[in-house]
Amino acid sequence: MAEADSDPTLLISGGGGGGGSERRSLPDSLHVNGGDGAYSYTRNSYYQRSGANGVKETIKGAITMKFDVEKLCSRSNIISIADLGCAVGPNSLNSMQDILHFIRTKYGLQCPKSDKTLEFQVFFNDQPSNDFNTLFTSLPRETPYFVAGVPGSFHRRLFPASSIHFAHCSYALHWLSKAPKELLDNNSSAWNKGRVHYTNASDEVVRAYATQFAKDMEDFLCARASEIVNGGMMIFIMPGIPDGMPYSQLAASVMYEFMASIFMDMADEGLVSEDEVDSFNLPIFTPSPEEMAAIVEKNGQFSIETLELTNSASLVDGRVDIKDWVVHVRAAMEGMFIKHFGSDIVDEMFDRLTKKLFMFSE
Amino acid sequence: MAEADSDPTLLISGGGGGGGSERRSLPDSLHVNGGDGAYSYTRNSYYQRSGANGVKETIKGAITMKFDVEKLCSRSNIISIADLGCAVGPNSLNSMQDILHFIRTKYGLQCPKSDKTLEFQVFFNDQPSNDFNTLFTSLPRETPYFVAGVPGSFHRRLFPASSIHFAHCSYALHWLSKAPKELLDNNSSAWNKGRVHYTNASDEVVRAYATQFAKDMEDFLCARASEIVNGGMMIFIMPGIPDGMPYSQLAASVMYEFMASIFMDMADEGLVSEDEVDSFNLPIFTPSPEEMAAIVEKNGQFSIETLELTNSASLVDGRVDIKDWVVHVRAAMEGMFIKHFGSDIVDEMFDRLTKKLFMFSE
Repeated sequence: MAEADSDPTLLISGGGGGGGSERRSLPDSLHVNGGDGAYSYTRNSYYQRSGANGVKETIKGAITMKFDVEKLCSRSNIISIADLGCAVGPNSLNSMQDILHFIRTKYGLQCPKSDKTLEFQVFFNDQPSNDFNTLFTSLPRETPYFVAGVPGSFHRRLFPASSIHFAHCSYALHWLSKAPKELLDNNSSAWNKGRVHYTNASDEVVRAYATQFAKDMEDFLCARASEIVNGGMMIFIMPGIPDGMPYSQLAASVMYEFMASIFMDMADEGLVSEDEVDSFNLPIFTPSPEEMAAIVEKNGQFSIETLELTNSASLVDGRVDIKDWVVHVRAAMEGMFIKHFGSDIVDEMFDRLTKKLFMFSE
Repeated sequence: MAEADSDPTLLISGGGGGGGSERRSLPDSLHVNGGDGAYSYTRNSYYQRSGANGVKETIKGAITMKFDVEKLCSRSNIISIADLGCAVGPNSLNSMQDILHFIRTKYGLQCPKSDKTLEFQVFFNDQPSNDFNTLFTSLPRETPYFVAGVPGSFHRRLFPASSIHFAHCSYALHWLSKAPKELLDNNSSAWNKGRVHYTNASDEVVRAYATQFAKDMEDFLCARASEIVNGGMMIFIMPGIPDGMPYSQLAASVMYEFMASIFMDMADEGLVSEDEVDSFNLPIFTPSPEEMAAIVEKNGQFSIETLELTNSASLVDGRVDIKDWVVHVRAAMEGMFIKHFGSDIVDEMFDRLTKKLFMFSE
């Protein structure tokens, strides 16, 4: 989400395939703002696009070097691509356009004399509560691929076995399927009182988050391993943290700390209750390359071809427009705050957040 | 649409498959009411369901007798089903559930000892302006098939070549891609002044409608012929008229005549302009079995396995609740009236329509 651009980005591309057909059920509570209003994701997602653009060359390289189009379309001329956690566009459309172009180019290199015309089917996936109407009506009249929208959590199976050739997942995997429940238990050492995230929290809280992330990733990888054909490829791009760096040094962490302190102020002022603050935890986790590699290796169904951590703008180097950044965060997260705290306090919280971040960056 | 239940229903099932990959572009102006409010299609579509239920046994028979599941899933265990013109549910979900059940049963009969588990992927198609959000959020949490929504006109290609095993289209094909343009030309003998449909109109008007329907059906059949695998099956259910029966004897025609006369009254009262009435034509056509057979045979890419005309309730036999029927018509058509006449006159028009139909049926 928005924090992606002011923090490092983790890109991982892997190939896999194989059996299994289990299904898992997970709650559907996370979706970005729909429509095209002032706080819509449609209008406020160019930080995410900028992050995705930064890794475009890497995707191109992975497809050119490792994606065997000739082999994959030997039995039919259909290439199926899935964008997992597509939100409402327009970033997803741009990424799909790029990937399709890279695959076509690779096929041209592999089979310059072929008269076979590849047909592409692109599956846009997100939670059922995602605004698919906005996504569908924003599509150009003519696309060089057949369009399908797939509602459902990507932590479970979404497609028939061995039916996807290329899966792409951009700025979505850092969203946990849920906040770990022990954070809410005041008898647990992982009780996350007075915070909204694991930044600066106890080791137990960090461990609860990391465990939930590992479980979600395992679910994700198992589902994809069933769905992706042998020789297929998956690329995911998400916020990352350098191995060994304290979480508190991430720009996003600074923001989460500010959110917590704003909510505690608001509790003092009687605008929200302290219980409401204690029981709210952002279901977001930022892994390091080392953690990510360990999870993928433990799962064992994909081989890692590339794992990169890219640098992006920092909150204090003047390259991030704070006001704009907060609107981006709001487009991505507002729904969660409204659901927990009600809609009345959201304007106030984001106003205070903008002010705090301004003061911090000066 | 709603007229389906008070008029005969045409069911046609055919098998086909084969080449071609042309794409056609058509306007996207027809969609039923979304959401789940008082005039929503979700709440007001049980007449269509009743029509679809009436032909359930025929669909079961066609699948049991003619759909070779064993052969179709010999290379993979995936069966792809498309529902074309699905609207927002719930009828589409019920139909898909039934079809899936019939296919599973047929497979059990064909391969009683098979340990292969069939996987189903269901593509719900409708215009991009259809309310897919309502459709997706109304889906049960667990479905026995993988879900995908496909936005686009079914008069053009929607899927990769040879990728669909079974296509279903219920109460959608009677919607033309557009009203024939000569109806608007006051220099043409097909100028449809003072009417909203071809009922009781000149032969030229009827011919313009029939020609547009034949063209739309040809586009539809060509697109499906490319998409449906060899040995696949398509079933469509739509309002029909017995061969040789005058259009004016259909219950729906009575309603269209009433609509025209209400609009002319409203023009006299200055509520709408006469030009507005003259330039509005419902893009709906009801074919006879003979016409339908001729169109399918001329296209030549499908063989007709069954073509049935079923009888349903009549407006005057007391089996149709007029008020209810008008709400159904409204759920399906309101958007078109609002687009042309503005939203102000819609309540008034449907109120007057209900009254006129009551008087007629007494």
